[in-house]
Amino acid sequence: MNGLSGLERAEVLTQALPYIRYYNGRVIVVKYGGNAMVNEELRQQVMEDIVLLRLIGVKVILVHGGGPEISDIMNRLGKKPEFVDGLRVTDKETASIVQMVLAGKVNKELVSMIEKKGGTAIGISGIDGRLIVAKMKDERLGFVGDVTKVNIKPVNDLIESGYIPVICTVGTDKEGNVYNINGDTAAAYIAGALNAESMILMTDVKGVMRDMNDKTSLIPELSVEEAEKLKKDGIIAGGMIPKVDCCVKALELGVKNVVIMDGTVSHSILTELLTDDGAGTLIRKA
Amino acid sequence: MNGLSGLERAEVLTQALPYIRYYNGRVIVVKYGGNAMVNEELRQQVMEDIVLLRLIGVKVILVHGGGPEISDIMNRLGKKPEFVDGLRVTDKETASIVQMVLAGKVNKELVSMIEKKGGTAIGISGIDGRLIVAKMKDERLGFVGDVTKVNIKPVNDLIESGYIPVICTVGTDKEGNVYNINGDTAAAYIAGALNAESMILMTDVKGVMRDMNDKTSLIPELSVEEAEKLKKDGIIAGGMIPKVDCCVKALELGVKNVVIMDGTVSHSILTELLTDDGAGTLIRKA
Amino acid sequence: MNGLSGLERAEVLTQALPYIRYYNGRVIVVKYGGNAMVNEELRQQVMEDIVLLRLIGVKVILVHGGGPEISDIMNRLGKKPEFVDGLRVTDKETASIVQMVLAGKVNKELVSMIEKKGGTAIGISGIDGRLIVAKMKDERLGFVGDVTKVNIKPVNDLIESGYIPVICTVGTDKEGNVYNINGDTAAAYIAGALNAESMILMTDVKGVMRDMNDKTSLIPELSVEEAEKLKKDGIIAGGMIPKVDCCVKALELGVKNVVIMDGTVSHSILTELLTDDGAGTLIRKA
Amino acid sequence: MNGLSGLERAEVLTQALPYIRYYNGRVIVVKYGGNAMVNEELRQQVMEDIVLLRLIGVKVILVHGGGPEISDIMNRLGKKPEFVDGLRVTDKETASIVQMVLAGKVNKELVSMIEKKGGTAIGISGIDGRLIVAKMKDERLGFVGDVTKVNIKPVNDLIESGYIPVICTVGTDKEGNVYNINGDTAAAYIAGALNAESMILMTDVKGVMRDMNDKTSLIPELSVEEAEKLKKDGIIAGGMIPKVDCCVKALELGVKNVVIMDGTVSHSILTELLTDDGAGTLIRKA
Amino acid sequence: MNGLSGLERAEVLTQALPYIRYYNGRVIVVKYGGNAMVNEELRQQVMEDIVLLRLIGVKVILVHGGGPEISDIMNRLGKKPEFVDGLRVTDKETASIVQMVLAGKVNKELVSMIEKKGGTAIGISGIDGRLIVAKMKDERLGFVGDVTKVNIKPVNDLIESGYIPVICTVGTDKEGNVYNINGDTAAAYIAGALNAESMILMTDVKGVMRDMNDKTSLIPELSVEEAEKLKKDGIIAGGMIPKVDCCVKALELGVKNVVIMDGTVSHSILTELLTDDGAGTLIRKA
Amino acid sequence: MNGLSGLERAEVLTQALPYIRYYNGRVIVVKYGGNAMVNEELRQQVMEDIVLLRLIGVKVILVHGGGPEISDIMNRLGKKPEFVDGLRVTDKETASIVQMVLAGKVNKELVSMIEKKGGTAIGISGIDGRLIVAKMKDERLGFVGDVTKVNIKPVNDLIESGYIPVICTVGTDKEGNVYNINGDTAAAYIAGALNAESMILMTDVKGVMRDMNDKTSLIPELSVEEAEKLKKDGIIAGGMIPKVDCCVKALELGVKNVVIMDGTVSHSILTELLTDDGAGTLIRKA
Repeated sequence: MNGLSGLERAEVLTQALPYIRYYNGRVIVVKYGGNAMVNEELRQQVMEDIVLLRLIGVKVILVHGGGPEISDIMNRLGKKPEFVDGLRVTDKETASIVQMVLAGKVNKELVSMIEKKGGTAIGISGIDGRLIVAKMKDERLGFVGDVTKVNIKPVNDLIESGYIPVICTVGTDKEGNVYNINGDTAAAYIAGALNAESMILMTDVKGVMRDMNDKTSLIPELSVEEAEKLKKDGIIAGGMIPKVDCCVKALELGVKNVVIMDGTVSHSILTELLTDDGAGTLIRKA
Repeated sequence: MNGLSGLERAEVLTQALPYIRYYNGRVIVVKYGGNAMVNEELRQQVMEDIVLLRLIGVKVILVHGGGPEISDIMNRLGKKPEFVDGLRVTDKETASIVQMVLAGKVNKELVSMIEKKGGTAIGISGIDGRLIVAKMKDERLGFVGDVTKVNIKPVNDLIESGYIPVICTVGTDKEGNVYNINGDTAAAYIAGALNAESMILMTDVKGVMRDMNDKTSLIPELSVEEAEKLKKDGIIAGGMIPKVDCCVKALELGVKNVVIMDGTVSHSILTELLTDDGAGTLIRKA
Repeated sequence: MNGLSGLERAEVLTQALPYIRYYNGRVIVVKYGGNAMVNEELRQQVMEDIVLLRLIGVKVILVHGGGPEISDIMNRLGKKPEFVDGLRVTDKETASIVQMVLAGKVNKELVSMIEKKGGTAIGISGIDGRLIVAKMKDERLGFVGDVTKVNIKPVNDLIESGYIPVICTVGTDKEGNVYNINGDTAAAYIAGALNAESMILMTDVKGVMRDMNDKTSLIPELSVEEAEKLKKDGIIAGGMIPKVDCCVKALELGVKNVVIMDGTVSHSILTELLTDDGAGTLIRKA
Repeated sequence: MNGLSGLERAEVLTQALPYIRYYNGRVIVVKYGGNAMVNEELRQQVMEDIVLLRLIGVKVILVHGGGPEISDIMNRLGKKPEFVDGLRVTDKETASIVQMVLAGKVNKELVSMIEKKGGTAIGISGIDGRLIVAKMKDERLGFVGDVTKVNIKPVNDLIESGYIPVICTVGTDKEGNVYNINGDTAAAYIAGALNAESMILMTDVKGVMRDMNDKTSLIPELSVEEAEKLKKDGIIAGGMIPKVDCCVKALELGVKNVVIMDGTVSHSILTELLTDDGAGTLIRKA
Repeated sequence: MNGLSGLERAEVLTQALPYIRYYNGRVIVVKYGGNAMVNEELRQQVMEDIVLLRLIGVKVILVHGGGPEISDIMNRLGKKPEFVDGLRVTDKETASIVQMVLAGKVNKELVSMIEKKGGTAIGISGIDGRLIVAKMKDERLGFVGDVTKVNIKPVNDLIESGYIPVICTVGTDKEGNVYNINGDTAAAYIAGALNAESMILMTDVKGVMRDMNDKTSLIPELSVEEAEKLKKDGIIAGGMIPKVDCCVKALELGVKNVVIMDGTVSHSILTELLTDDGAGTLIRKA
Repeated sequence: MNGLSGLERAEVLTQALPYIRYYNGRVIVVKYGGNAMVNEELRQQVMEDIVLLRLIGVKVILVHGGGPEISDIMNRLGKKPEFVDGLRVTDKETASIVQMVLAGKVNKELVSMIEKKGGTAIGISGIDGRLIVAKMKDERLGFVGDVTKVNIKPVNDLIESGYIPVICTVGTDKEGNVYNINGDTAAAYIAGALNAESMILMTDVKGVMRDMNDKTSLIPELSVEEAEKLKKDGIIAGGMIPKVDCCVKALELGVKNVVIMDGTVSHSILTELLTDDGAGTLIRKA
């Protein structure tokens, strides 16, 4: 790559023109977190992609989780993480730690990275401006929340003022309780409330594959109907099921399309959005 | 108090009218933190005062610290807090913990309380929108920062959109380092950048007193010149010196007046601003 | 009351917080006039209440009459007031006097009082900006008008520019005739056109009472249906009938609720709106 | 005139084009009152001229007095008008009558006429929005006021909202006293605060004349310097002196030019502004 | 006419007041071109009329053709104009010449004239901002276009910024081909997209006449239904048929009324709009 | 180039990030014309570059000439082009042809190309909105104009409304005469009036070279002082002298820097602005 001349670079830029034109002015919600977020260098690239999208006029929102950091701090605080059906059991103290780690550590690190890349970001949580209103999902899990309402005004205000909103997915209720909210679901609700063009779910797999062991079996595009069929046929299975369900939910909430994408691959967002090569699996309503 | 009739209450409200009229539309920065912030019930009252100020048209900004919480989490994480000349020695890891606790724990708890009282708040740090730019004060102290610049736009944007900005005083630099910033100083810079009518420093003493042991010796109002004289005379001494210096700095930066006030007394903000009784010591330029 | 400390006053203010929050940004039309308006000190208190409402963010509009002043000036001008069924017989000259006294005397006195209390008011009549369009009600009464249309733009413009609109209820038609308009009805039309939260009718009785001679028999709240029943039962009778009919009209025109209130009691508006104690009778749709 | 064809009329309109273009968007203050205002038909024509100016994009403000009406109502109320050096002695009751007649009678009649001609007007006094702040000129005269300040915001708000402001010249002070203000002077202050293009003083003489008895001796244009010389030479004399002094004051306050014009001549405003024929005497700074 | 005094001129202006008031703020599209446009002096008068309309607050848009100029330049370039059924056969080169003459010659000459008369105009073509999207009407005619879409935003932007838009009727498609578009039809589409009050078709006949040879047989007003009947009866015939069809189309597209008017008569636009004398034939929906 | 993967393309995009960030929101005036404009494919690339700049938030203005097309049409119209000192002798008819060709042919072709590339452009001349006011330079040359004033409002209006302004450099005066204006000079005036970040002069040479025959002798950057020295030394000579003088003029008029660039090289604009490789010679004040 170093060998590319200025002209060759200019040509690459102009070849991206139709894509840039298409996304200019549209809303894209990027959900980034968990296992996709582990590598520092990749994290920087994702932030670069986001800053570039903003500069070419995309209204981009970053929604993030941070499971590994939460567990790490919990362990250091002498609080043993516990899970039921893959969901973190969240007593009051755990909820407070989740809030602290997501809103105070992960969120600000992402904001800081975006700003180093030249963007201007403001990081908020679901508590700020009552963005994410939640209720308890299951008493046994404690303060694990289901989204009951999204007050999207703070996000719109930040976009209008020119910032990249960076959102961590803790929720709140009228009594001021704090809830641990599934990041994918929160992103779906936020993207829906914004009538987003796209929601991009960054995970650690390539997308929906016919055969998990065959990297060439990636399905580039799916309708909701086809996705439901693949679930019945057992091809969409395991951890991919909630991902796909969340995508379907997002489409129901008004998002135009959803892409499941491998966040552990360099610049996968730009590759998907601004080049002929796609990345991951795009799911659309019909 | 419960014995007051509706009419008596209405009379109290109308007697506050000249004060309400005066502050309507003006900017007030409340610095709240450290030892003033320990009591939960008082904290709630301060948030009530802030929400009321916002509703009567005051553009109120809450700037907070959170020393005790930081030390508490540090201890729990097995990291021993260390101080030199009253300043926390802040290595990289400590800076990260300061950020996490202030932006993720204290900030969001204050936001949540404001919202329970009926206000709408958004909590940010000095990292968001590059609000507080800092540089290292002294290599021996590590990431303890001096403010070099305040980018006030995010605060103005939040005020314009109708929110109560809640700000924790960590700073950043071009390299993305995080700095622990003295809360009073940060508040002075922010109040100055906003040309605030008032900065209110909530501490755990009544204000400037002629005799620390005589509660009736409170000085209700001081000019900068008089303050300097009291310092020379040894009447302003000890921990009150940096407080007063910070007030003088705020006045230089364009704040109209500064009040040092006892945050451990109920509703001291409203008492000072909306009744004939003052609270604390008001310092003005001349 | 003089004995209240600053803290006690601050507490009263914060106890009003939920009410202030509720009314913030809402529209309230206060109809004030006739017998409720006779006492100078009470008049001042009503203006104080109105200024306070404006300062806490209520969009308050004052609609006034001024029967006694009209009769007074007419008598002094040697013009004998005449009434048919309680309505002033209004020949052309009388209409001109009504206009002069309401728009030139009462209106400006109220504007002046509001400004002395610290508000900013602009006083207009139903002629300005063709606010109140009217037609003759009954040839025998002369220029007594029925409202045919309200052009609410001038009122909205004044509110948007930050003023308290003070409106006297003379109307006009295409030919430029001036009509004497019933103040309660005009207030109902104006409140309806503004989709007001509340219309407050200040009269000289406590509200709707089961027994006019028993002050404890005040009915604090009524639905339209209940009001109609009380009329049939003869409990709502005499001068209270047109008051209640006007309230019902206001509700039909889009006002959320109407309160009949005793204007001869100190600070009854603030007592009703900002304290637990109500004042008068609230009438709501259902 | 009835004989003019549509084409001839169209030609007249297009011949006015350069004048219309010039005044489009500019501010013109018309002072109308006293002896110029006596004839009903002429009054209608002045209102027509004003409506036409507004429709062709001139920001026109009407400032009026109403001496004869005041004296008339005073007499009918059994209050004998008294004058010292041509100024009405104004006790508190007289001030109240002046306010009532100007704000309630004359002002609303002018507003009504403008609306009949198709304009949209809002009539205010110097009390509304504290437009004209005044102080006592001379204790012997009572509430005759000198202008100390003009709060022009209400006038600008009305212009911005599309209305023709109609202003009667009573003033007020902090105590809420009402002052009788000389209309020409008030107009000069208002025109100055608006940086008006023109102030037009409608009087009952043709303008400044070399010889009062020779109608052909009208001086069409004067500089301030020339005016001062004519005063010294006794050519500007008697009642014309305060008129001319007021014009000079207006120029000092920032008005571009002032025209003294005969208000008892049909359509003199349009003739002056929109045709080759001038009317009256134009006074300019240099 | 020269004999008219200033007063008489002022009277003519005020007599136009009701018309000026009516059209103030409304949209009028003037289609001007072809045979109506030949005389230089008349052209100047039409531009005067347009500038005057703009100054009195009419949002006026000028749509023009320029057949004779096109043929003239084509002949000079050695390109023989060819017509089929009255439509110009338009090969690629001819389309380019049409574009050049209309957008570069006629358009700019009209803009220049408007500016000389004191208006501010910006001239655009149907290519600018993709204003007129077209497709081929008939392969044998080449690049003669049917309008498929109007992107009205550029016209609205120019109006909002205070300009008189001057539009020449060439169209374009996605491939960037240039189409020769019938000016009357383009004007109808543009007027429809603007919900114009009026479209004025300037031609070289007086309007719809019962008898072409009898100038007194002009029909001043027609409904669509009546127009259709006159077509059946052969009274509307020849070149008047497409004119009338275009008017009907405009009404269908949302224009309130259409006037066919003689552009070879002095100031016919102003005569029609601002005087009692009409000009031409007005066609309305019903 | 075809061999580049999506990832490699994404990397090129992110490597352009610092440049994109820098130019975001800034004004760049591109002067394009004459000999630089001859090749159709290059013309398309320049338009692509311009559209891309607009999409990444650059406020880009295209100023163009079109000498060869003018001469071509003149010849076809039987009008022999004549030059004195390199300037076209421009009689009235020639001026009219210049206007027709530039505003009607070249301008609309460029607008059309920009739109095909996905931009939205509006093409105007110096006549529209009186953008370029000129006077005769030299009687012997006829209507060759010197710029006397630039009314930049139309350009700002078009930028604010989101268009790429495309401007042809004919000027006008109060009498409506049309002037042929040197394109480079007009661009300098326009760029100055816009306080542009950059003016880019596209020519048919690489830039300022020490030795015209040695392509490696290009001078990448020059101060005004250095440029003056190179002129004295004869290194800047011939046709490069007026180019450089025009650049110096632009800098005096407030442009931050000017680049002389080879328009016959692919994507030279993007190469200069968005890559490490520069293109051409940048001239700056000091």
